Amino acid sequence: MEQETIIEAGGAPGQRGPIDHKRRQQILQAADEHFRLYGYRKTTLADIAKAINLSTPYLYKFFDSKQALGEAICSQCLNRALAEVEELVAAVKSPVDKLRRVFTGLESKGWGFLNDERKIHDMVLVSFEERWGSLARFKDARFQLIRRIIVQGRESGDFERKTPLEETCGAISNMTDLFFHPMLLEQAGKSLEDEALAVANVAIRSLTA
Amino acid sequence: MEQETIIEAGGAPGQRGPIDHKRRQQILQAADEHFRLYGYRKTTLADIAKAINLSTPYLYKFFDSKQALGEAICSQCLNRALAEVEELVAAVKSPVDKLRRVFTGLESKGWGFLNDERKIHDMVLVSFEERWGSLARFKDARFQLIRRIIVQGRESGDFERKTPLEETCGAISNMTDLFFHPMLLEQAGKSLEDEALAVANVAIRSLTA
Repeated sequence: MEQETIIEAGGAPGQRGPIDHKRRQQILQAADEHFRLYGYRKTTLADIAKAINLSTPYLYKFFDSKQALGEAICSQCLNRALAEVEELVAAVKSPVDKLRRVFTGLESKGWGFLNDERKIHDMVLVSFEERWGSLARFKDARFQLIRRIIVQGRESGDFERKTPLEETCGAISNMTDLFFHPMLLEQAGKSLEDEALAVANVAIRSLTA
Repeated sequence: MEQETIIEAGGAPGQRGPIDHKRRQQILQAADEHFRLYGYRKTTLADIAKAINLSTPYLYKFFDSKQALGEAICSQCLNRALAEVEELVAAVKSPVDKLRRVFTGLESKGWGFLNDERKIHDMVLVSFEERWGSLARFKDARFQLIRRIIVQGRESGDFERKTPLEETCGAISNMTDLFFHPMLLEQAGKSLEDEALAVANVAIRSLTA
């Protein structure tokens, strides 16, 4: 394989070459289809290249590993899930209701992956196991969503203002993992909506103290 | 293998035969040694039987499967960990400090398994994956410990009394899983003491509201 300088494409690690290259979209679409159909683990870069009549070395011009492609697809899935949670959050006014919807919304999305998009669930699980960058970016976006809600609640007087903001947001963000982490949902083997509501109530009471 | 009526020994499922039989202790000790040395997955009932000059069928008189032995050893380890956390809890007076120590104590024990007793960590992980009875009993004991602290705090006036007790205790008990679940500690790859303290603070603020 020809060695090239890796160019960061859109800030995503492991991606290289021109950002707006049509080929990139074509590769991403083929990867998405393969990961959904056969799973991340069972798909090779050669499978993806072959599906769109490209050579594997040519594919390396855009993604320097299968993981880089996995991270790109995983980011798309996690971003979509979070965007749906943000819609649920935007549909209610009070910061209390918004925060509750972060918990139940994430639980519902995680449970949806497990039940309706099992191969995506498995890939998200790999991203947790191998601490992919896509996961870190998702966790950061989730933290920012929770932070915006808490700041809004502090400004509106719904939430207290004396506890350290970053620590509180980080802790509450971690707490949502109990209902979104693919392994925990798998081990529970059932929807954790009630548990998510109960933990959301603890978070909410801590803020309205 | 001779079929006998299964007698519940000490209420532990999968155990049979007379409770106080010396053989049972001998088998448990050999199992403990094997699981610690070679790991639960790699040990067979035949290995354990051979180590103490028993036949495998004879061993079945006491434990009806490897999992029954695994659950017995796992219970011992989890009970010991929880007993150590209870000691830490008993050493401080205020319900706030006690609750904080449940979080940091469990984190420390979980981290201890991962770092100092790796094979035990792996077995506890199996118990989470396969939802062993030993895990359910541990979770119940953890819930009861947290419930005792919260009831004490309600009686002393340190904690509020208006929220539903069982729901709150269940939620806070679940929250400790973030720092005790062997898979989460493994994926974190570092001590989660600071995170445990931050989440404990959320729990404590929710109770002092």
